[in-house]
Amino acid sequence: MSLTIVGSMAFDAIETPFAKTDKTIGGSGIYCAYAASNFTSQINQVSIVGYDFPKEEMTDLNKLGVNTAGVEIVPDKKSFFWSGKYHLDMNTRDTLITELNVLADFNPILPESYQTTEYLLLGNLAPVVQKAVIQQLKIRPKLIVLDTMNFWMEVALNDLHEVLKMVDVLVVNDSEARQLTGEYSIVKAAKKILTMGPKHLIIKKGEHGALLFHNDAIFFAPALPMEDVFDPTGAGDAFAGGFVGYLAKTDDLSFENMKTAIIMGSVTASFCVEKLGAERLKTITPQDVTARAKQFLALTDFKLV
Amino acid sequence: MSLTIVGSMAFDAIETPFAKTDKTIGGSGIYCAYAASNFTSQINQVSIVGYDFPKEEMTDLNKLGVNTAGVEIVPDKKSFFWSGKYHLDMNTRDTLITELNVLADFNPILPESYQTTEYLLLGNLAPVVQKAVIQQLKIRPKLIVLDTMNFWMEVALNDLHEVLKMVDVLVVNDSEARQLTGEYSIVKAAKKILTMGPKHLIIKKGEHGALLFHNDAIFFAPALPMEDVFDPTGAGDAFAGGFVGYLAKTDDLSFENMKTAIIMGSVTASFCVEKLGAERLKTITPQDVTARAKQFLALTDFKLV
Repeated sequence: MSLTIVGSMAFDAIETPFAKTDKTIGGSGIYCAYAASNFTSQINQVSIVGYDFPKEEMTDLNKLGVNTAGVEIVPDKKSFFWSGKYHLDMNTRDTLITELNVLADFNPILPESYQTTEYLLLGNLAPVVQKAVIQQLKIRPKLIVLDTMNFWMEVALNDLHEVLKMVDVLVVNDSEARQLTGEYSIVKAAKKILTMGPKHLIIKKGEHGALLFHNDAIFFAPALPMEDVFDPTGAGDAFAGGFVGYLAKTDDLSFENMKTAIIMGSVTASFCVEKLGAERLKTITPQDVTARAKQFLALTDFKLV
Repeated sequence: MSLTIVGSMAFDAIETPFAKTDKTIGGSGIYCAYAASNFTSQINQVSIVGYDFPKEEMTDLNKLGVNTAGVEIVPDKKSFFWSGKYHLDMNTRDTLITELNVLADFNPILPESYQTTEYLLLGNLAPVVQKAVIQQLKIRPKLIVLDTMNFWMEVALNDLHEVLKMVDVLVVNDSEARQLTGEYSIVKAAKKILTMGPKHLIIKKGEHGALLFHNDAIFFAPALPMEDVFDPTGAGDAFAGGFVGYLAKTDDLSFENMKTAIIMGSVTASFCVEKLGAERLKTITPQDVTARAKQFLALTDFKLV
């Protein structure tokens, strides 16, 4: 099934306790696309870049089956730039620089060829932009997955609530779930969010794994215990991309298959943090995915007698 | 198989955002014993109490199969008293009062009838006391499980290292594992601890579950997502008691069975936090355990195609 991904394509400067780069390719759209490409080669990318975005990066994406017809190239502006530095715990980071550049005017126009998309992943962007994409689709996709962050809860809460009513799955982290609901208990927060629109909710807990909520059912996907997290940048996007990519591949929206999809999201995120930026995501093989998924199975598998 | 538990029996005053009591029965030995009693009725208790400790509490334990011959009653001193107040997140607490009373002179003497014990759980106490118990046993138990805390790493690190060499399983939380090793990465910390003596290591992460490390194998037991944690006091002890209780019942030290034992520890801890103090632990039925264990299974169960 075809999957449309909306997200930023950018330059990042990243510093972690283990690594540093002044310029690497990043942005939610990049991480989501590379992650999803491990599962499906029918990807429609929607994004915006400046004149400085490398053509080879586009070609690399095209080779994986990513259609970049929906990536607008602005000839007289620079690409989005983000710079961040991680603390020792890798769970917190300081944003040092945010230069919106082209992203300030992002008003995505979906190519006609994207109209038949069955799966839609709305990466972390302004809720009005996310809404505009949904409204351009004449046939509603089978599944719309929305990623967002605390920033939009602070500056565009009403818009966010509007778009929440239009989607099937929301992906947030634990502190964002708390912020969105005012509930400290994750279970109570989840119950509230499931009344806001999405029928499925994923709450990411970083190194502590992720929870899937649907009606009264809960599934817990662990994170892989790792000796070192080299660079956590993009792990959340890789998770979302792997999750939706697997669903687009299998085209099965049962709770059972959603559980496996979340594991595939966790698998993809576990690769993402092994190297700087999106480096590792670009080199994952199907064998890597299968082997790592088995590791996840072994991690939580137990018998009741 | 018979299980000997060494731990405090005390009065607690507890305040959480949901509940408050000025006096309830607590102490690691109480939580461990009630937890283990769900799985085995051959429990030898080793502890010390003052003249003020209620006789009915002893009788209640005896009814469950807990032998209290090893509980010293000091006629002219008061029982250990602890008072604590939890913060809203329930993961942090302030100790308001610690009155050691009888615990200051705790020098456990094991009754002759305890000598044949196959399983030994050393609750959180001074490492010299834990060591003294091991040394009194003429036949080494099949399995010795040690619980400890950051306090002993600060005031008795050398003693702790000595006792670590004598045990099979260490139970600590994530911050204690970091403190003991100086490693931030939990996986690296685990590898270091497994060179210190114990062949199995359990790292508890509170609401984020627990990890079991053995050689290169890792098992992850989730915590049950709960709407409310009423009172976390004793959850760690309940976890340890449930874990060892299940092992004493099944008498199988394979990694496979250790995994199930950790789930049983998590099951027991999940009951513990539902009510104030040890209240809920006293009323768990075998049906409760079975049903909750199935919930844990459903929580992480997924299929790979």
